Amino acid sequence: MRTVNNKPAIFMACDATYEESNLVLFGAPFDGTSSYRPGSRFAGSAIRTESFGIETYSPYLKKDLENVSVFDAGDLDFSLGNTDKVLCEIERMTERIISDNKVPFMIGGEHLVTLGSVRAIIKKHPDLNIIHFDAHADLRDDYMGESLSHATVIRRCFELLNDGKVFQFGIRSMTREEDLWADGKVIQRKYDFDTLNDVVIALRDKPVYLTIDLDVLDPSVFCGTGTPEPGGVSFVDLIKAVHKISGLQIVGCDVNELSPHYDTSGVSTITACKVIREIILSIL
Amino acid sequence: MRTVNNKPAIFMACDATYEESNLVLFGAPFDGTSSYRPGSRFAGSAIRTESFGIETYSPYLKKDLENVSVFDAGDLDFSLGNTDKVLCEIERMTERIISDNKVPFMIGGEHLVTLGSVRAIIKKHPDLNIIHFDAHADLRDDYMGESLSHATVIRRCFELLNDGKVFQFGIRSMTREEDLWADGKVIQRKYDFDTLNDVVIALRDKPVYLTIDLDVLDPSVFCGTGTPEPGGVSFVDLIKAVHKISGLQIVGCDVNELSPHYDTSGVSTITACKVIREIILSIL
Amino acid sequence: MRTVNNKPAIFMACDATYEESNLVLFGAPFDGTSSYRPGSRFAGSAIRTESFGIETYSPYLKKDLENVSVFDAGDLDFSLGNTDKVLCEIERMTERIISDNKVPFMIGGEHLVTLGSVRAIIKKHPDLNIIHFDAHADLRDDYMGESLSHATVIRRCFELLNDGKVFQFGIRSMTREEDLWADGKVIQRKYDFDTLNDVVIALRDKPVYLTIDLDVLDPSVFCGTGTPEPGGVSFVDLIKAVHKISGLQIVGCDVNELSPHYDTSGVSTITACKVIREIILSIL
Amino acid sequence: MRTVNNKPAIFMACDATYEESNLVLFGAPFDGTSSYRPGSRFAGSAIRTESFGIETYSPYLKKDLENVSVFDAGDLDFSLGNTDKVLCEIERMTERIISDNKVPFMIGGEHLVTLGSVRAIIKKHPDLNIIHFDAHADLRDDYMGESLSHATVIRRCFELLNDGKVFQFGIRSMTREEDLWADGKVIQRKYDFDTLNDVVIALRDKPVYLTIDLDVLDPSVFCGTGTPEPGGVSFVDLIKAVHKISGLQIVGCDVNELSPHYDTSGVSTITACKVIREIILSIL
Amino acid sequence: MRTVNNKPAIFMACDATYEESNLVLFGAPFDGTSSYRPGSRFAGSAIRTESFGIETYSPYLKKDLENVSVFDAGDLDFSLGNTDKVLCEIERMTERIISDNKVPFMIGGEHLVTLGSVRAIIKKHPDLNIIHFDAHADLRDDYMGESLSHATVIRRCFELLNDGKVFQFGIRSMTREEDLWADGKVIQRKYDFDTLNDVVIALRDKPVYLTIDLDVLDPSVFCGTGTPEPGGVSFVDLIKAVHKISGLQIVGCDVNELSPHYDTSGVSTITACKVIREIILSIL
Amino acid sequence: MRTVNNKPAIFMACDATYEESNLVLFGAPFDGTSSYRPGSRFAGSAIRTESFGIETYSPYLKKDLENVSVFDAGDLDFSLGNTDKVLCEIERMTERIISDNKVPFMIGGEHLVTLGSVRAIIKKHPDLNIIHFDAHADLRDDYMGESLSHATVIRRCFELLNDGKVFQFGIRSMTREEDLWADGKVIQRKYDFDTLNDVVIALRDKPVYLTIDLDVLDPSVFCGTGTPEPGGVSFVDLIKAVHKISGLQIVGCDVNELSPHYDTSGVSTITACKVIREIILSIL
Repeated sequence: MRTVNNKPAIFMACDATYEESNLVLFGAPFDGTSSYRPGSRFAGSAIRTESFGIETYSPYLKKDLENVSVFDAGDLDFSLGNTDKVLCEIERMTERIISDNKVPFMIGGEHLVTLGSVRAIIKKHPDLNIIHFDAHADLRDDYMGESLSHATVIRRCFELLNDGKVFQFGIRSMTREEDLWADGKVIQRKYDFDTLNDVVIALRDKPVYLTIDLDVLDPSVFCGTGTPEPGGVSFVDLIKAVHKISGLQIVGCDVNELSPHYDTSGVSTITACKVIREIILSIL
Repeated sequence: MRTVNNKPAIFMACDATYEESNLVLFGAPFDGTSSYRPGSRFAGSAIRTESFGIETYSPYLKKDLENVSVFDAGDLDFSLGNTDKVLCEIERMTERIISDNKVPFMIGGEHLVTLGSVRAIIKKHPDLNIIHFDAHADLRDDYMGESLSHATVIRRCFELLNDGKVFQFGIRSMTREEDLWADGKVIQRKYDFDTLNDVVIALRDKPVYLTIDLDVLDPSVFCGTGTPEPGGVSFVDLIKAVHKISGLQIVGCDVNELSPHYDTSGVSTITACKVIREIILSIL
Repeated sequence: MRTVNNKPAIFMACDATYEESNLVLFGAPFDGTSSYRPGSRFAGSAIRTESFGIETYSPYLKKDLENVSVFDAGDLDFSLGNTDKVLCEIERMTERIISDNKVPFMIGGEHLVTLGSVRAIIKKHPDLNIIHFDAHADLRDDYMGESLSHATVIRRCFELLNDGKVFQFGIRSMTREEDLWADGKVIQRKYDFDTLNDVVIALRDKPVYLTIDLDVLDPSVFCGTGTPEPGGVSFVDLIKAVHKISGLQIVGCDVNELSPHYDTSGVSTITACKVIREIILSIL
Repeated sequence: MRTVNNKPAIFMACDATYEESNLVLFGAPFDGTSSYRPGSRFAGSAIRTESFGIETYSPYLKKDLENVSVFDAGDLDFSLGNTDKVLCEIERMTERIISDNKVPFMIGGEHLVTLGSVRAIIKKHPDLNIIHFDAHADLRDDYMGESLSHATVIRRCFELLNDGKVFQFGIRSMTREEDLWADGKVIQRKYDFDTLNDVVIALRDKPVYLTIDLDVLDPSVFCGTGTPEPGGVSFVDLIKAVHKISGLQIVGCDVNELSPHYDTSGVSTITACKVIREIILSIL
Repeated sequence: MRTVNNKPAIFMACDATYEESNLVLFGAPFDGTSSYRPGSRFAGSAIRTESFGIETYSPYLKKDLENVSVFDAGDLDFSLGNTDKVLCEIERMTERIISDNKVPFMIGGEHLVTLGSVRAIIKKHPDLNIIHFDAHADLRDDYMGESLSHATVIRRCFELLNDGKVFQFGIRSMTREEDLWADGKVIQRKYDFDTLNDVVIALRDKPVYLTIDLDVLDPSVFCGTGTPEPGGVSFVDLIKAVHKISGLQIVGCDVNELSPHYDTSGVSTITACKVIREIILSIL
Repeated sequence: MRTVNNKPAIFMACDATYEESNLVLFGAPFDGTSSYRPGSRFAGSAIRTESFGIETYSPYLKKDLENVSVFDAGDLDFSLGNTDKVLCEIERMTERIISDNKVPFMIGGEHLVTLGSVRAIIKKHPDLNIIHFDAHADLRDDYMGESLSHATVIRRCFELLNDGKVFQFGIRSMTREEDLWADGKVIQRKYDFDTLNDVVIALRDKPVYLTIDLDVLDPSVFCGTGTPEPGGVSFVDLIKAVHKISGLQIVGCDVNELSPHYDTSGVSTITACKVIREIILSIL
């Protein structure tokens, strides 16, 4: 039955075997602590389906996904309603990938999934830095009594690193307490990426984890997310920022918080696909 | 500032004080184990807002919500991502209501919330029976490794009662294992309510908990739910069944699994409102 | 420029001239007193556009719109926010049509538009009867202080006729006051059309105005309306009722309360189109 | 990379190899002649994705897809805008499957795809009969000048068989010409399945092709289709009809005309999945 | 029943009593003259519900709603279909608030509601100026024969002031007649806010009413409105303009024309919430 | 029946007769080769209906459609599923219009319709140039085996002209092969209109065909299209580009690829209307 078309659902042209690959995509379909609109669990599946209609070639970078080696491992199978177990499974998956000297690229899920990956990577790279694009600071100490939450995830990551190792961009929503706390501990650029060049220079040769909460984008082009915040960056702003990072030593990354059902036009999912394409082509 | 209109959002005319009331409504906005489409956390809020446009009078029963005493306590405040704690809070709330000799009426949330209420009520009524309307049997022993799940909730309730005390109606989706297991333990009527009269006779004078997963309704009139199943009962079928139960000693009840965002027409929420109105007027 | 297609937007095959026609369609795009979800102003336009895709032939009646003479006059041009003026314009339009011995067929708009037509027709037919299909009794004396409202319209019509001349079917929502008031004054069949045969016999040879609030239909097939009420009749129930009336002397009619934007699937508008087709073919 | 989940997207549990299988599913994503709302090209993909959330076990039949051998071949790859080529590719695919003594089960696409399959099967089974469930007769000789169209497909199939070999059920929309033409040539049951028992008896031991245009269902439960027609059969009516056919010698079948984007609730796709499950379990 | 959550639906943290407050929010749910897409009547309710998910802290202003004193009076109760009475009720409400030396902040409703407020304020502040952000000039003398309309509202306000006291920004849609009429009477800046600095200087120490038709925003971030007009300002442009005004003596203000049902993503309502937050924090 | 309103559905004020007109609008409702989301067949009808709510006056140009002479010929009647015939009908229509020395203005449909028009115009203007605004290069030699496709249309047009006569702007999606092929043959400006001034100077006094695939716009303001591509131009960018072209000798033009059903807010259709208004007022 060769002539027919029953291929696994993979992201675009990412059809390398695990062994061949330099970068491994996997989905983390978890949205258990979402406080507002859940549904980011559907992101991985939506992205793979929608990616079928998008070119593998980036005119921005003049590179093509068909010429790089990426394995798409599909979505992790999660037990539901058990936050700790979910983070462990992400940690184990990430560990395996980095132990084979490949770059793990996780597709969330809500933002808390980042913590699982960072826990794995920090063991191999104790001097890890995090570049974080987001509308929200995610620096609370707890959220409605829970310490593990999409609203606390960067605080939890911060505790694994040291002062001055978390670099935030695009932030435009937070509590007064987060704004005060961040001062001096976290390097935070509000609203845009204007200081990214300096950060890229400062981090040259250092291991970097890149985490992108896609709600850093303006809701005009990305309304399919749990807590959309007007006043965000444009798609072009975002991919230019991604291109800037391309010279760094990216040891892992994730994009998260696409909640595809909330955008009936499908544009949010298409946007996520193109952001992922640009990140992969920037790293490889 | 008397002439203006800043009332708390309550269900229809349910404006009695706690002390005056015979029945207490409260919301349980939890959807943490939803395996498919989450969002039942929004049900309580949507139902209160939408109920504004619906008559308080039932022509079926010739009774009016304005003539009964119901307190609407609002939604419980849940910590997110912590299933055990959520069930405890529901249990505590239910306990308080029944200790004051009022009927607790919970608005889910996903179906797992029923377990919290039943745990409270069984202590006061050890000979409790459960009447369960649903498309799904919810009789699995575990679901993806978790024992506390929307798909296991009636199995967990069953374990608190004895054989022959769970009466299911409208069931039309299950695994082969559930179908075999149920045999002889659970009294199950598939697809409709045809044997309900017999059950009502059998349960006369016994304490009964009524739990309605609204997906027992056909998706034609109730598509706003996590796992819609074609082939369900009509709205009229359902309220006739509710009216039949009115003579029984209902010691607690819940309706659950409205996920309002998935029905952009708003009909699912309106339907839920009218079902709740008919239940309250049947009980009181 | 003959070969192209710039025809006026008319309902299906209703392309007779005014002079040729026996029945005149016109739209009354008014929704100024809608208390819940407005938008019935768009009904006429949506019905004409959508009717393009529907067969002109009724297999139920074995008759075809291509063989009857109907003029579609388009929508009336209303000033906005002026209820009195709107009713006058409807009255004038209806008068003109009946003075030419044609049947006026109005497409609402909200239900209040019926009052304009009935005011015109009662002058010519003082012994008028009204057959009224609806989910709501519309028998309030006032609504939020206004005597002219979609919720009072049949009460206002009743005042122009005498006791026992209003026949209601399908009613399933009302206040307790309306239910008590109606008793003995209005002939009301709740929920269905079971007594329609008797009414048809009683009204033989008498002038009848038919007004159909399309929310008499169950929201499963008609969710695109201001106040959907579960528990309604099916499409087949409704057109069978229409067919029963075909022997009567229908001197005017209307269908109203389609609010097309609330049904993104378009099914409500299609349903309205087929109901209108069956009514026209039943009358002519 | 065993623990992760990158499976091909198949329909439910249909994971047999081609060699093991008795029945072969394949998609025909063509909607090139759709006159109203296109999009049935997305049906195969939507059905596979959505089928993930539906039980493999049928309580109606007490059978389970996990116990039968079905191969899901995915969707055919079609060139766009070339109707003849599409029909040839379907014919070739069907031929291959029946030459291996397996049952071909095609998921449309628009209804014209049926012609490709019937052309293949008639060669092996010259005495073929067709059982056809649909809202529309599809018996026009041409449609807007084209002889190959979703509105002519059963006329074209009829020409390959003989008088009295096409059995239609549920038909409720047609032109006057189709209604007259059908008389005496086609066995047509309008609106429902009431005469299906007789047909099943008459066709015992004869080869039968089953084609289901899902718009035979009422739009209340299936609005995601190109030309929804109110007044259709219920889901339970349809699967009971399917179960009745189970004793016949089904040599091929298809379901078609799901246009998933027009039903934002997802219910139409879920309904299609359950219909397909019931057909497979009825045949095998 | 302290532990539960049945609070009135208020805007964010605006829980001051009337007596404590410096600013009073109230809704004016009127859309009776909307010529295109109605539904702004739902704005107040949607804004209060949605505001729950938005931070009370503005990183732009480094101020927090929790530290200011605002009373949310809820929505006014309007009779429907009676434009004059609605304007009177708004006028009376505004009068009461300003007589207590508080700032009235009205949430529309359609733009005509502004006239009610301005009529009240002009009595106390005869030298009132109006700053008006909008896509539409709203300067017609009448609209379809009516002098009170969303399309004439600023003309009516102008007649209460004098030449040179109305300052419009962002205007990009009007008739030729409006464009000619405005010249020399109204200070109009088309498309953007480029001349706002000069206006702020000119109006220093003078009483100013601020009225924002939210359709001044580009539909990319605000599609939930009656007549969206591409080519508008961004969210950041708008709040920067709001911040500029903060030094002026704002004696009343309103935001209007959110029609929430037309934006299924919810972004328009979120945007309105954040605009309101920034205005309040700018004024207080 | 003068007072009523049954006008043909035309674009805005385009009510000139064919004889009076300088420019002729017509629709080409074809989407037969759409590879992703079809539905552009509905564009003409949606644009005419929606245009009713938009001003005829352009404040940008200070011109009014009421003062120019445009005939709206409606949509062409196409046979379905026959690409060649469709292109012939477009060619014939265009020929007739240009033979009467009027400007043909086609509303797509998918982009392939441009080929029909260009075939007609090249006969009269052998030195034709094409200005092409689009997100996609549309320069493939074939697409899935077909040479006539929305993805090959500019390549087919190119073959009718000579090197250096196709000027592309806004392009941001293509294959690597298209990018390489275009070099030296096509004048391509990626992402924006920055070089348009030079092109306008170079083309002064030469015949120009303008074709605008509306997906050149960013999906934030135009999501209702088959293949939305983030990173596009704004509405203001686009109409400024249109205004620049106004001095050229435009001998024909089209806008295409609006697929209105994919934008439930209606903004895409409104945007298309305003772009068409600005083009007409720029040409005439």
